[in-house]
Amino acid sequence: MQLSIGLDIGGTKILALAHDGTRVLGTSEVPTPRDAGRLAETLSELTAALVDEHRGTLGGIGIGIPGFVGLDGVARQAPNLPAAIGLDLGEGLRDRFGVPVVVDNDANCAAWAAFRQDAPDAAALVAVTLGTGIGGGIVINGRLFRGAHGFAGEPGHMVVATGGWTCPCGQLGCWEMYASGNGLGRLARAAVAEGRGASLAAAAGEGGVVDGPLVGRLAGDGDPEALAVLDEYAGWVAVGLVALVNIVDPDVVVLGGGVAALGDALRVRVNSALGSYPTVRSGRSLDVRIVSLGPEAGALGAALLASETAFGADPPPPVG
Amino acid sequence: MQLSIGLDIGGTKILALAHDGTRVLGTSEVPTPRDAGRLAETLSELTAALVDEHRGTLGGIGIGIPGFVGLDGVARQAPNLPAAIGLDLGEGLRDRFGVPVVVDNDANCAAWAAFRQDAPDAAALVAVTLGTGIGGGIVINGRLFRGAHGFAGEPGHMVVATGGWTCPCGQLGCWEMYASGNGLGRLARAAVAEGRGASLAAAAGEGGVVDGPLVGRLAGDGDPEALAVLDEYAGWVAVGLVALVNIVDPDVVVLGGGVAALGDALRVRVNSALGSYPTVRSGRSLDVRIVSLGPEAGALGAALLASETAFGADPPPPVG
Repeated sequence: MQLSIGLDIGGTKILALAHDGTRVLGTSEVPTPRDAGRLAETLSELTAALVDEHRGTLGGIGIGIPGFVGLDGVARQAPNLPAAIGLDLGEGLRDRFGVPVVVDNDANCAAWAAFRQDAPDAAALVAVTLGTGIGGGIVINGRLFRGAHGFAGEPGHMVVATGGWTCPCGQLGCWEMYASGNGLGRLARAAVAEGRGASLAAAAGEGGVVDGPLVGRLAGDGDPEALAVLDEYAGWVAVGLVALVNIVDPDVVVLGGGVAALGDALRVRVNSALGSYPTVRSGRSLDVRIVSLGPEAGALGAALLASETAFGADPPPPVG
Repeated sequence: MQLSIGLDIGGTKILALAHDGTRVLGTSEVPTPRDAGRLAETLSELTAALVDEHRGTLGGIGIGIPGFVGLDGVARQAPNLPAAIGLDLGEGLRDRFGVPVVVDNDANCAAWAAFRQDAPDAAALVAVTLGTGIGGGIVINGRLFRGAHGFAGEPGHMVVATGGWTCPCGQLGCWEMYASGNGLGRLARAAVAEGRGASLAAAAGEGGVVDGPLVGRLAGDGDPEALAVLDEYAGWVAVGLVALVNIVDPDVVVLGGGVAALGDALRVRVNSALGSYPTVRSGRSLDVRIVSLGPEAGALGAALLASETAFGADPPPPVG
């Protein structure tokens, strides 16, 4: 049996996953070491343990990192995983196990999982993960699109509100300030501050936090103020999708991340908001899906990528 | 000698161009017929005349259309060329000349000319034409990227100013309302209306029009108010490029169209504005160029495309 191992390195934990090309055989999880050397060792140990447990022949290893990963597999930026910056995490694994190791952005890995699992026929798929921030990945013609430097498909830092809220990246008005899971909470707190969120404030209680999950819960109960915040949120999701649609022209857009738990309540509102943009509607068959992706998506995508080739670093295919 | 013919259909004229694979052999120009049948005939006549004049063997024909062109080569939207909507303009030419005919958006053709002429080594090239509106084209790994429906690379209708100026497309705050050549004029007139453009109003004179070329002329003379408008304009150009850079991750961005006549005055300001966006700077080698492209770019790109294959409609390349 041929095994692929996917390693999704998060800011707090590493999820390791073994895959046989058809299904997930098992997973394991450990806290993310703060130290660079220990990080590399841990990846190696997790891989060895899974290979041992599932008694297969290791074919490849995929690593997902929460940050910008260059085409050389080295992380250039990783605000939640500073230890990984500048490291070639694939090198040690390649040496020890003698198999191909792919390192990519975690959202690219999740996009690959969405493509392979949920939309294998998509001509152009855009995956957007609405979580703490916004991650993204683009699959074109059955291949992950990585761009000239490996940083393609990162729509969270498009500016959708000139002079808007200050993003940790240093820019003003980034999409992820409004349309991420944290953005939903931010919009809700703005509603409370502006007197449009008394029910949200009441539900949060004294000293409680008005956040995205609270909005989701109240909206599920039909609370009008929560629903109004959700409408506003869907509008911000849509405005970024308009840019993605006009640039990438996808046939499938997959929305995942924590906010995906809102399910149809979100999908219906996003589609309704998109309907007010003529350039999105005209002549396209656009399928916007909410996919849970789930906590394993990054590790699964990394495992699936491990035995496949991403493009962007490839030599140009023949033309003509 | 093998000939390719490029036909760039504009709202007012058709430019036809003959190319031998190395250089432009000659061009011809006629007014654009308003009638669909006459349009198809005219394309055929222009082609026949150029083939006859240059005594070559016709290898392929490329057609550029100012509108959204489906992967089937049929125009779906064409505000400036309504006669072409729903027509398969390639069909008649294919029948008469027995050669491959490629039909694409005119900005895609121009992007292809920019790639082949100015940046053949680009891993990911984004071309943006700043004219009446904003056109665009994306070349990835040496192939034109057309998206799932043929509409990829149309950044003019990204929303960069929520609740902003009303675009003819029906959306509010589209990029092309601010960053096209017409957008430059619009910003200048707003400056006049707000009392920041006395010199522009004076230069235009009684009943005169404050437009982009006027701003360019006065800026060239060092007029502070014109230069301030140009700074503001460069800021709007930059905000759209931030989205393109974060989504496509190009190594080369080519700015063309009428505004390209501003040359270095524009390039320096756009680069300066881009410098204030950390997500654009970090870890990338991004080359922003102003390329005149010139009035022949669409026809030239169409001719070059004629003997080459665009991707997007292709079956997925092998993975793994």
